[in-house]
Amino acid sequence: MTERCDLLITNANAATMDPSIPGGYGAIEDVAIAVTGGRIVWIGPRNELPDCAADDVVDGEGCWITPGLVDCHTHLVYGGHRASEFARRLGGESYEEVARAGGGILSTVRATRAASAEDLYRAAEPRLQALLSEGVTTVEIKSGYGLELDTELKQLRTARRLAQHYPVDIVTTCLAAHALPPEYDGRADEYIDLVCEEILPAVAKEQLADAVDMFCESIAFSVDQCQRVINCAKELELPVKAHAEQLSQSGATAMAANAGALSVDHVEYINNMDVAAMAENGTVAVLLPGAFYTLKETRVPPVESLRASGVCMALSTDLNPGSCPIASLRLMMNMGCNLFGLTPAEALAGVTRSAARALGLCCSRGVLRAGLRADMVLWPMDTPDQLAYEFGALKPAKIYFGGRNVTAG
Amino acid sequence: MTERCDLLITNANAATMDPSIPGGYGAIEDVAIAVTGGRIVWIGPRNELPDCAADDVVDGEGCWITPGLVDCHTHLVYGGHRASEFARRLGGESYEEVARAGGGILSTVRATRAASAEDLYRAAEPRLQALLSEGVTTVEIKSGYGLELDTELKQLRTARRLAQHYPVDIVTTCLAAHALPPEYDGRADEYIDLVCEEILPAVAKEQLADAVDMFCESIAFSVDQCQRVINCAKELELPVKAHAEQLSQSGATAMAANAGALSVDHVEYINNMDVAAMAENGTVAVLLPGAFYTLKETRVPPVESLRASGVCMALSTDLNPGSCPIASLRLMMNMGCNLFGLTPAEALAGVTRSAARALGLCCSRGVLRAGLRADMVLWPMDTPDQLAYEFGALKPAKIYFGGRNVTAG
Ligand SMILES: [Zn+2]
Ligand SMILES: [Zn+2]
Repeated sequence: MTERCDLLITNANAATMDPSIPGGYGAIEDVAIAVTGGRIVWIGPRNELPDCAADDVVDGEGCWITPGLVDCHTHLVYGGHRASEFARRLGGESYEEVARAGGGILSTVRATRAASAEDLYRAAEPRLQALLSEGVTTVEIKSGYGLELDTELKQLRTARRLAQHYPVDIVTTCLAAHALPPEYDGRADEYIDLVCEEILPAVAKEQLADAVDMFCESIAFSVDQCQRVINCAKELELPVKAHAEQLSQSGATAMAANAGALSVDHVEYINNMDVAAMAENGTVAVLLPGAFYTLKETRVPPVESLRASGVCMALSTDLNPGSCPIASLRLMMNMGCNLFGLTPAEALAGVTRSAARALGLCCSRGVLRAGLRADMVLWPMDTPDQLAYEFGALKPAKIYFGGRNVTAG
Repeated sequence: MTERCDLLITNANAATMDPSIPGGYGAIEDVAIAVTGGRIVWIGPRNELPDCAADDVVDGEGCWITPGLVDCHTHLVYGGHRASEFARRLGGESYEEVARAGGGILSTVRATRAASAEDLYRAAEPRLQALLSEGVTTVEIKSGYGLELDTELKQLRTARRLAQHYPVDIVTTCLAAHALPPEYDGRADEYIDLVCEEILPAVAKEQLADAVDMFCESIAFSVDQCQRVINCAKELELPVKAHAEQLSQSGATAMAANAGALSVDHVEYINNMDVAAMAENGTVAVLLPGAFYTLKETRVPPVESLRASGVCMALSTDLNPGSCPIASLRLMMNMGCNLFGLTPAEALAGVTRSAARALGLCCSRGVLRAGLRADMVLWPMDTPDQLAYEFGALKPAKIYFGGRNVTAG
């Protein structure tokens, strides 16, 4: 504890999400939080606060304070949209008809390739702003709509540029192994050659990606092909994660977990062996209820088994133009409970502590604790259960990013 | 067409929702809209606009203009919340255990009775604000958490008071026949006596309700009891609507439609005879996908049959603390498509033209047409399909309420 601090917040309660504090929220009622240099320097019951002179003393007005929210899985930099495809499907056309009419992920690849860097940036801004207005202070953004070097770089640079203009930390992930580009039709192994020999090395050289991701599914890449991408990422000293077991059981989750993946995402179809591999390796299960909802899936991830095995469950938007054009992490908390059966406390852990861990950032954020970043949201509510229970009316009263008040409006 | 008008909007497209214009949206590209005295005085292709001098000329910047949205079924004035009940159920407690612990609708009745008028007003404000920020310009609000005269009046007066302070038209509905109050346990007929002899006459005398609603279901009131409420409403010359066929088939929908109900709401369990009765009487089917979603229901309303019979389908939030604590009509458009199979154009009709009709207001709003209210929303989008397709990032660029720019921020 310093004797002088930048910011002191009292007259509030905290859902610290610190697992060393009992109860699902790690709650501290009538809390005091002292911040200096963008970090929390002291947090605890107000009546234990040491003498402390603060430059800025904030009355929390009875709010609950949570860590800044972390959206750990988005594809929010992309060109175009797929509203017409959405309308055609609801008008009765089959997926096949829509694909033949030029729909599906490859329409987003075409639009993203065609978009200028400026277009991509302008299109991404309202999506990011929507997340930030909900108290999100860290966002992961994937490439994966280029599927060729230049466009993958364009997407990742756009993601980095957003962080220079908005009060948010952006974590970038190269997802070149997202889908097979049309020019490699029938030659998936050759495309993986391109990913491993050209795209990932170039991305690593420019330090444009904090991690490497891949989509392991019959409609994307095989477990063997994903293993090659993982091997390449390891050579480049980049952490890995995977989209896996979304539509079928493939063994990719266990493979990725055993390779030390930070997270495996979707995981509706994982089995007990996958869960055991995740538990053993500390791999986070990133649950994406918005995609489940939009795709009208029926198989839910095995939440009870993940819970019983101690696997950390994160929740994220998967924000993307096809399977989840929904820019709301708060809604994912509600869907995580209503669709997947998480408790409200698990939902909040899923967008804070566990989401930070899915990004390899659990040493710096996701929990309110001395030494960690002062990314904090003040919510005008009686109980943190409200964050998952209700949607729309409950908005942040104040948002702090690195100790700085960045509340909009 | 006046020669001078208050407001002229050009450089925009309109989804007029006028059924006399071909296409689901009644689209007019490159539209001109002239407004005087709060009403549209001219709308059509810009190149057909007569000579017109406007006090305020607005560049629509390529936006699409829709009618102001109408949320035709909400319970947004209530005391307390049920977040803890939500958490208990997700923690594994049964509905019965939760009810025994004091949960369920009667907990909201207790909290609403205990709340001061000022408390109710303050609690309702953020819910209403959330709807308004999405372009909603007309909101229906029901009583029904009083179940005794004074509290029903308090709820309805609070609803009226909101309209004095926010740019919105509020339509009030007395839903005294919502649930059986605890003091009438086992005496439902006697409570219906109270509703018909005391509550509804008093509400009508103060002109506090624009319509009368009731909940016909085994957990609420029987068809016969609802028939009595309808008869009473007719004597008081108040239009009626009903919550019916949400959880089971009872015959209430056909009964209410044949009695000339403006709308029947929920309607998951209606059969062909119900649909025919609605079609014959021009009764609107108000679909409430948020309640369906929150209650994890599996039976969807018969959308194809309603469509084929020409029954108007509205969409609404049902905003309430139990089965839909979600203050977002835009999300209901997305859910209407994803959960119930509406097309994006039907979803927009459901929150404009058909919602206005469900409130008996189709002569004044819900469509952009000369003579109707100039409640309009400008959306920065390429196609109106985006309104149902995406959620979160797409926000109104401008909102007009009765011709007045009421855009927030
Ligand atoms: Zn994804
Ligand atoms: Zn209702």
